[in-house]
Amino acid sequence: MIIKKTFNQIGFQKSGKALPLKIDLIEKIYGEGSFECFSEDTENNFVFSQSRSFDLIELEQLLQAVGWSRRPFRRVRRAIDNSLLKVGLWRHDSKFPRLIGFARCTGDGVLEATVWDVAISPSYQGYGFGKKLMSYVVQSIRDMGIKKIVLFADPGVIDFYKSQGWILEPKGKRCAFWYAN
Amino acid sequence: MIIKKTFNQIGFQKSGKALPLKIDLIEKIYGEGSFECFSEDTENNFVFSQSRSFDLIELEQLLQAVGWSRRPFRRVRRAIDNSLLKVGLWRHDSKFPRLIGFARCTGDGVLEATVWDVAISPSYQGYGFGKKLMSYVVQSIRDMGIKKIVLFADPGVIDFYKSQGWILEPKGKRCAFWYAN
Repeated sequence: MIIKKTFNQIGFQKSGKALPLKIDLIEKIYGEGSFECFSEDTENNFVFSQSRSFDLIELEQLLQAVGWSRRPFRRVRRAIDNSLLKVGLWRHDSKFPRLIGFARCTGDGVLEATVWDVAISPSYQGYGFGKKLMSYVVQSIRDMGIKKIVLFADPGVIDFYKSQGWILEPKGKRCAFWYAN
Repeated sequence: MIIKKTFNQIGFQKSGKALPLKIDLIEKIYGEGSFECFSEDTENNFVFSQSRSFDLIELEQLLQAVGWSRRPFRRVRRAIDNSLLKVGLWRHDSKFPRLIGFARCTGDGVLEATVWDVAISPSYQGYGFGKKLMSYVVQSIRDMGIKKIVLFADPGVIDFYKSQGWILEPKGKRCAFWYAN
């Protein structure tokens, strides 16, 4: 059921403000529990979803655009399937929604969660999407009853996380990484 | 089947060296895949196990002895059940094995793992158990095909992890924590 004429196909610039989307349209396209993300980009509609599946090529392009290294698709698929939570932020289009944000987390589902692969497409940075994405991720993890969330912040985004209430290295904790050769 | 007379009951000091344990005895008491951990404490036998279940009170005592904060038992039980890997290090006794070391990890089982709750009982520190425990944890995670492992090192153990080949904050990454109030 298309309840709103869509102007915002990829590559097509709209001149006016986007109307809010109807909830049943959102859930039809993006799955149960999806909801609109209102931002400073008022010309497009954006939707958060935990259930719309990802095109791995599109996800890979997004993650590489923000500097993550390439990983084998099949392994990424399994890692996503095994994640506690995976959130997509989509620029709405009735036919071709575009993935412009992503985050996932792993954990024991009870005590601790680790956030991985946080990304906002460079074309959509500066509109407050990162803040909204992390706010939604934290809230979703809290809703599971988890009280401790950790992530590894690259130097360029440390201030971003600090401003969102994250505590850097409490009690002098340092992060240690081990990599296979 | 008891194939070796046990001298090392809790509170009983042996005078000589402990004989190596037979594999079938180890697996009978500690579960499949368990194996003996040889250490500088030659008077006792020690065993690594991923399958022997934990007494939550004993585990809690161990974690508190190294400074972790108290957590509700029921949540700890679920968190352990949901962990990708949980390793116990036991001081062998045919009747009353004692948990003297622990570590667990969470993750997506494919790309990344996070190590939590690493502990060696203060009475058994200085014998090289921490090194053997982490070496076993890393190897077990590697065996799953995971190539990136992270953990949060307290100030007092940063040098320990560095000496084990862990890289502190590669590329300037910092760890950020979010706690529920």
